[in-house]
Amino acid sequence: MKKLLPVPAVERLAGLFSLASRLSKEGKERISSGELEKITGIQAHSIRKDLSLLGPAESGREGYSTSGLANLISGTFGFDKKRKVCVAGLDMLGTAMLNNPDSALSGFEIAAGFDSNINRMEMLSTRVPLYPLYEIEERVRDRGIEFAILAVGPDLAQKTAERLVRGGIRGILNFSPVILAPAKDILVRNIYLVEELRLLSALLSVQVKTGEQERST
Amino acid sequence: MKKLLPVPAVERLAGLFSLASRLSKEGKERISSGELEKITGIQAHSIRKDLSLLGPAESGREGYSTSGLANLISGTFGFDKKRKVCVAGLDMLGTAMLNNPDSALSGFEIAAGFDSNINRMEMLSTRVPLYPLYEIEERVRDRGIEFAILAVGPDLAQKTAERLVRGGIRGILNFSPVILAPAKDILVRNIYLVEELRLLSALLSVQVKTGEQERST
Repeated sequence: MKKLLPVPAVERLAGLFSLASRLSKEGKERISSGELEKITGIQAHSIRKDLSLLGPAESGREGYSTSGLANLISGTFGFDKKRKVCVAGLDMLGTAMLNNPDSALSGFEIAAGFDSNINRMEMLSTRVPLYPLYEIEERVRDRGIEFAILAVGPDLAQKTAERLVRGGIRGILNFSPVILAPAKDILVRNIYLVEELRLLSALLSVQVKTGEQERST
Repeated sequence: MKKLLPVPAVERLAGLFSLASRLSKEGKERISSGELEKITGIQAHSIRKDLSLLGPAESGREGYSTSGLANLISGTFGFDKKRKVCVAGLDMLGTAMLNNPDSALSGFEIAAGFDSNINRMEMLSTRVPLYPLYEIEERVRDRGIEFAILAVGPDLAQKTAERLVRGGIRGILNFSPVILAPAKDILVRNIYLVEELRLLSALLSVQVKTGEQERST
């Protein structure tokens, strides 16, 4: 049965996975929740509480095993499973995503790119197969693509999202400045540069309650 | 005195500002919290609670005034103030940020770009003034730049962040795959593509508690 977790805890734990993996690779075998607090800005008791949601994490006098932490989180979240991703919209931002070298190393395969401008695609140098945007529904279905990076313009965003949903997409990283209509069982993460800048402005303008600062340090 | 608000509420309210502004521009004068729930996926009671943190929002039988909502949130968060932003690291992602046309419309000025590769900068076509990365501390200070978009490679990220902090930066949007060491009074928002994809994987793998789904629908 799937575990029941709040979104902010999932966010913190996913970040902790990356950190623990890196520390383990760098040869640091153990880390305390206090040290984790210093690195991440997330309070130690919050880290301990998040981890307790996953089950018993091995914690000795010198703290957690970094590889143990990474495995515990990876096992719960299925990070060992390789997932296919497509990029819709190949302007500069989309193209940067298409050729992101980190994705392959991290359990993702950029399996296809889509754009409405055929000429633009002919100019692109990439190993990823490219298709016209109107084929997105069938290509996503046929190739078993689970996630989409949506980087089309605002005029095409909602329509493209609906095609992705009909093609069976499970999650969308939305870089377009449009709030997508909610669709059942589809996860959407909105990453809009201007909104992120605006959020920095907002956070500067109010006092922020600590303990809930999981995404800022 | 600055209001004391939890980060997730600030995130939701900043998103609500964008939505209310857009609806108001489109000629929709009033909206109920139930309609807002349908558009955003955020529960109506959560929206009402967030707004109550800002003070009394005008709410009649047909819901909130969209322009009133936008003004209430903008006033609290100081969105009317124009803020200067720089981009550090001008590979494809950074260049896409540099030339983002939305930022100017939304109260931000992309005031400078920085890269360690002088040849690369000479090739770029942009109206934004460009400088070598080693000048970033003095340029940020001299030009009163408040926010930085950090898009340098992982090897340069921490060092560049420290220079930005010494230059007096207030907030960093971190696109580099590095967890920056916390610095006092500096806001950091981490946007790392692979982590966002991983988060989608994580959210697929667990049941997510509703009511805390403020960033997913």
